[in-house]
Amino acid sequence: MKIIRDAVHGDILINEIEKKVLDSAPMQRLRYISQLPGISSVYPSATHTRFEHSLGVLHFTDIFTKNLKLSEEDREALKIAALLHDVGHSAFSHVGEEILKNFSHEKNSLKIFKEKIAPLVESRLNAKKIEKYLKGKGYGIIISGDLGTDRLDYLLRDSYFTGGVYGKIDAQRLLDSMEIYKNKLVVPEKSISTAESLLLARYFMFSAVYLHPTARIAKEMISKGLRIAMKNGWISRDEIINGRDFELLFYLKELGSSIIGSYLERGLFKKALVITPSPAFKSFLHSSNARGKIEEFLKQYFEENDFVVCIPDYPSQNFEVNIKQKKKVVQLKEISPLVKTLQALPLQNTFILATKPKIRLEASARMKKFISNF
Amino acid sequence: MKIIRDAVHGDILINEIEKKVLDSAPMQRLRYISQLPGISSVYPSATHTRFEHSLGVLHFTDIFTKNLKLSEEDREALKIAALLHDVGHSAFSHVGEEILKNFSHEKNSLKIFKEKIAPLVESRLNAKKIEKYLKGKGYGIIISGDLGTDRLDYLLRDSYFTGGVYGKIDAQRLLDSMEIYKNKLVVPEKSISTAESLLLARYFMFSAVYLHPTARIAKEMISKGLRIAMKNGWISRDEIINGRDFELLFYLKELGSSIIGSYLERGLFKKALVITPSPAFKSFLHSSNARGKIEEFLKQYFEENDFVVCIPDYPSQNFEVNIKQKKKVVQLKEISPLVKTLQALPLQNTFILATKPKIRLEASARMKKFISNF
Amino acid sequence: MKIIRDAVHGDILINEIEKKVLDSAPMQRLRYISQLPGISSVYPSATHTRFEHSLGVLHFTDIFTKNLKLSEEDREALKIAALLHDVGHSAFSHVGEEILKNFSHEKNSLKIFKEKIAPLVESRLNAKKIEKYLKGKGYGIIISGDLGTDRLDYLLRDSYFTGGVYGKIDAQRLLDSMEIYKNKLVVPEKSISTAESLLLARYFMFSAVYLHPTARIAKEMISKGLRIAMKNGWISRDEIINGRDFELLFYLKELGSSIIGSYLERGLFKKALVITPSPAFKSFLHSSNARGKIEEFLKQYFEENDFVVCIPDYPSQNFEVNIKQKKKVVQLKEISPLVKTLQALPLQNTFILATKPKIRLEASARMKKFISNF
Amino acid sequence: MKIIRDAVHGDILINEIEKKVLDSAPMQRLRYISQLPGISSVYPSATHTRFEHSLGVLHFTDIFTKNLKLSEEDREALKIAALLHDVGHSAFSHVGEEILKNFSHEKNSLKIFKEKIAPLVESRLNAKKIEKYLKGKGYGIIISGDLGTDRLDYLLRDSYFTGGVYGKIDAQRLLDSMEIYKNKLVVPEKSISTAESLLLARYFMFSAVYLHPTARIAKEMISKGLRIAMKNGWISRDEIINGRDFELLFYLKELGSSIIGSYLERGLFKKALVITPSPAFKSFLHSSNARGKIEEFLKQYFEENDFVVCIPDYPSQNFEVNIKQKKKVVQLKEISPLVKTLQALPLQNTFILATKPKIRLEASARMKKFISNF
Repeated sequence: MKIIRDAVHGDILINEIEKKVLDSAPMQRLRYISQLPGISSVYPSATHTRFEHSLGVLHFTDIFTKNLKLSEEDREALKIAALLHDVGHSAFSHVGEEILKNFSHEKNSLKIFKEKIAPLVESRLNAKKIEKYLKGKGYGIIISGDLGTDRLDYLLRDSYFTGGVYGKIDAQRLLDSMEIYKNKLVVPEKSISTAESLLLARYFMFSAVYLHPTARIAKEMISKGLRIAMKNGWISRDEIINGRDFELLFYLKELGSSIIGSYLERGLFKKALVITPSPAFKSFLHSSNARGKIEEFLKQYFEENDFVVCIPDYPSQNFEVNIKQKKKVVQLKEISPLVKTLQALPLQNTFILATKPKIRLEASARMKKFISNF
Repeated sequence: MKIIRDAVHGDILINEIEKKVLDSAPMQRLRYISQLPGISSVYPSATHTRFEHSLGVLHFTDIFTKNLKLSEEDREALKIAALLHDVGHSAFSHVGEEILKNFSHEKNSLKIFKEKIAPLVESRLNAKKIEKYLKGKGYGIIISGDLGTDRLDYLLRDSYFTGGVYGKIDAQRLLDSMEIYKNKLVVPEKSISTAESLLLARYFMFSAVYLHPTARIAKEMISKGLRIAMKNGWISRDEIINGRDFELLFYLKELGSSIIGSYLERGLFKKALVITPSPAFKSFLHSSNARGKIEEFLKQYFEENDFVVCIPDYPSQNFEVNIKQKKKVVQLKEISPLVKTLQALPLQNTFILATKPKIRLEASARMKKFISNF
Repeated sequence: MKIIRDAVHGDILINEIEKKVLDSAPMQRLRYISQLPGISSVYPSATHTRFEHSLGVLHFTDIFTKNLKLSEEDREALKIAALLHDVGHSAFSHVGEEILKNFSHEKNSLKIFKEKIAPLVESRLNAKKIEKYLKGKGYGIIISGDLGTDRLDYLLRDSYFTGGVYGKIDAQRLLDSMEIYKNKLVVPEKSISTAESLLLARYFMFSAVYLHPTARIAKEMISKGLRIAMKNGWISRDEIINGRDFELLFYLKELGSSIIGSYLERGLFKKALVITPSPAFKSFLHSSNARGKIEEFLKQYFEENDFVVCIPDYPSQNFEVNIKQKKKVVQLKEISPLVKTLQALPLQNTFILATKPKIRLEASARMKKFISNF
Repeated sequence: MKIIRDAVHGDILINEIEKKVLDSAPMQRLRYISQLPGISSVYPSATHTRFEHSLGVLHFTDIFTKNLKLSEEDREALKIAALLHDVGHSAFSHVGEEILKNFSHEKNSLKIFKEKIAPLVESRLNAKKIEKYLKGKGYGIIISGDLGTDRLDYLLRDSYFTGGVYGKIDAQRLLDSMEIYKNKLVVPEKSISTAESLLLARYFMFSAVYLHPTARIAKEMISKGLRIAMKNGWISRDEIINGRDFELLFYLKELGSSIIGSYLERGLFKKALVITPSPAFKSFLHSSNARGKIEEFLKQYFEENDFVVCIPDYPSQNFEVNIKQKKKVVQLKEISPLVKTLQALPLQNTFILATKPKIRLEASARMKKFISNF
């Protein structure tokens, strides 16, 4: 047994086989993949990485499965799946993933497991089970469900590292009271408040942190830097998938990417235009390649490295949270007015144009003109 | 007024001129200078940087000088000095500093202030005062003293990010009760316990975190990687002074530094030999260029990228903490048996040889032979 | 200046005149008035009293008014009003207040201030202003408003002492960002999430703590013990107003109150019947003297010390939270779907009959019969 | 399984038999026995009781014995002993115990267990084992040792409720790493810092909290009130042993104890004389009945209810902490210079005379005269 000290959970216990997985190159790479790319532009303490998060998910999965009394074989397979659930992330996590066509970090995690990790553990673990859990099947829901250990850890961790108060959830109570019932992860009726409170915490984390306007601009700058570099042939798709955040940033800066240069010295672009889209414009924004069309339009007048556009997206709040009412299982949203409201709430809905200071006024005017067509 | 949310202190208020300094390129570079290089190999959450620490020192200096009722001019100058006190750090902070001859981050902070920051603020601030405080003179002791705001912040911050309990100090009580008396920063007699407790906290942080054997190996690997690269002419002194941690790591990896390659994938070297030096060997270790001689010896048998030696050093615990007893000022160590004991305690005293697994046994034997000469 | 160490806020600074008020007998009595009577039956750590809470409200009022830059005279008067805002509480706070006809702790606070405290401070403070603020007029809203310092402190404090996570609110951010605008306490638009989050925290504290079914039974046992004792002439109205919690409990126990005897040894009554009232029964429950009628009915069959009935009440969630949108002031509930939902949410709606174990079954049957008339 | 929410540990799990013990009258009485009598005069949040502390010790014993892999029978017996370890405390815990001749709360706990608790649990538990553990024999050391679960809980809890930072110990790490070796509770060598840090935390808690001068005066007022009441025949020895704190306070106040009257309204006596005793006076102070002789002397001039004397005592710091060095067990104090120093440190050494304000000057003079004889 090895003890690793984590800022959020305190001591995390790691057995020998977990240590072997943890020490593998694909897992160690996660030390250089930011948990929240771009967010430290706004919340400077948010320097944490997918590596600690993965340890945290392992830890919560360990505690939870002890309470659930799974078999040792299932537990161990599930813990390894917990540790590996994010191993397939590209550089810049979701920011990288969004610009890669036909890429999903979940599938990549599975691939990495099969190719690089399974050979290390196969003799002692049930690789088929680990694969099943990585796909979110069977007990895999314990990790990836709407109240799963992945979300429990990231809410607490992101809150801890942003200095927020929103993400403080009662993970202990959930882990103590949830159970597997009729093949579902269920919350007993008396813990409804705890589940409601978690979904609200997630909502507030989205509005205060994940979708903070300045953070959206920072993420968009990274994203655009990568897209331009790919288009120019400076970097390949594989380099994004297998690279590390700073490795790519410094490489692009060296190659002369002026937008990444700005990012690294936090000459973040300033807001030139922030609007709540009209229904017509909104429908355009969600049509195929809206970003491309806007960028084409602006490139007629401005250097492409001098501006970014942030298209509002609307993270699903269509939660699948099962409540056990006596012997029935019902959906939380059906019995909780708060969660029902939450589900209908748009999380953020502004369109942002951000630019270098020198073109701010002109770009704002051009953009307004473009929008006036809708 | 701008509000920045910090994980340790919550809201930190920044006025317009402080924001200007904060947004300058030299300050923004600190986002990429680890507060504790190498430590995240052991404490994975310790991903924090000099940037947040600098904000924290500004914050404590703000609170403290409000209590002290300094003039507005002095306060503002001191706060700017607090923000800038670490701006001159090279890549890898102290690890980088140690391999650069004739370099001190304090002097470099002063230089950067004069050349790059003063022009931004001069019209509105007293640059002479800022320089004086950066040198630790006059009120500068408020930042750099043994109970200064620099130490108060780093103990709390390093504790927060390592998940430790040792560094939890009563900063609030110290900031509420310390005063300037006879040109000295003094602690009133009734707060002696708080001061003792802080020095003990620092001691425990050294033994549990800063000098953790594995962390020493990690730091030594970075250090040796840099030294070999300088020797080979791959990087210049200036690149270490002005570079960023990851920039250098990825650059060296690309140039083929195998030791940095190992570090990045945490093939940290394993301990081959750990000994408490005999008096004779200890005296050799502190003679000039002991490291060089040991490395020369081992290079006869092994590739230089395959091993590191960690020479014990003995951080001074000769604290200057003034206690105000009625109208007298006395030294804490004169009246506190605990602090007196602490002062005489060696903080760590092992000599470590760490190597790649394949040469571990042989290297251990060779090293023992070398040591047997003393 | 005196420093008092509080578990929630750390150091609280008290000036000389505040210390004088704090040391007065009416304030010291608050050390024996539970902040949450009955709740420690469920949350055993909730042993905190109105005394610490009063210090906390003083502390937040101090911080807030510093940010608001009130005149020193106004600040000092407001801080004294903060310290005194609960001084008029009867024994068992709200539980006692509810059984006293024509009694309000706010009016009693005013009376105690005039009669017993004003003579101590009058020469140095503006007593008229303190009275005004105690009435919630003018700046008094800073203490008693829906986002006032009273609520900020009690949510944090009750959360701290119940081990909850629900009450964790971002008081610092609110105190940093709220202002007085057009004679109203307003929250800037960008802090809407913080205000929403506070109202939700309050909601969850009600459902998890303040209205916990077992806590309702405990409170009802105290309440009934007091009512029977008053009816029997064992204690007077004045003894409840001026007494201390334990003083009354032990006095009643000695006089032979069997219900208080049970309470003290936590033979809390067990639930015999828990129902969500039908509309007709609900309307009866809110008619005048419903409790009296039910108790009369049950007394035909059972000893009055052997049962209690808990009538659901519906704490108002009709919040008055002003949001400053540019130059307009709007109500939070008008622009926040979450708060609008919250306002329409019934906080608890069960009717509970709890009894000694021996009569549980029969009492349940009788009660059902009674209810069947509606 | 029942879940109880504790402020310090979060959820505490209680099985059916533990719940039965917890619900017994002797355990419920602990809700009214202050954990730190008198301390809330100085630290107003310190309202916690022996009841929550007992739950905390149960919780830590549960965690620790899970790690130690004791048999289920031993574990359950040890957990019950943990819950009951303080059940024999008289009113005012140690303050009451000190004035009762031939009384020890440990023996009383054993007696209460045999007479009142064993009949409830005997059929399902091994009462002999519980008795053995209550005596501190065998595994009982896990509760009562110098690093036992009793101390781990009270340091954390007293720190939590006083708002201190001193008591923050790394209980998790100790519970994870201690083991039973050669029938002793041992700490592995690598956790020496954690053990040292705990002993230092205890030292600082003594100096800042337990022996705070004002707290000593408050405790002495309670003590003297009880002693006078016993002497006058107002209360019996049994009433102190079986009573509750406030029950006795209000009873004595009603009977006219002026010193208890002062205490309840916090007219705490003020320091009239504080001196560090000379060796001769010190030796007198530790002779038999020194307090009695001083009080006799002062009673010639002053009403006995108008003053108290606080005799310095010197809590043993002769710790028994076993360190496992390879296969040897050594004492921590033999290898730790800090602990050795600590052991030789007097924890407090002032003699205090405190009086009503009106006799302060005269009493101080009389007392000085008395002391001058030594």
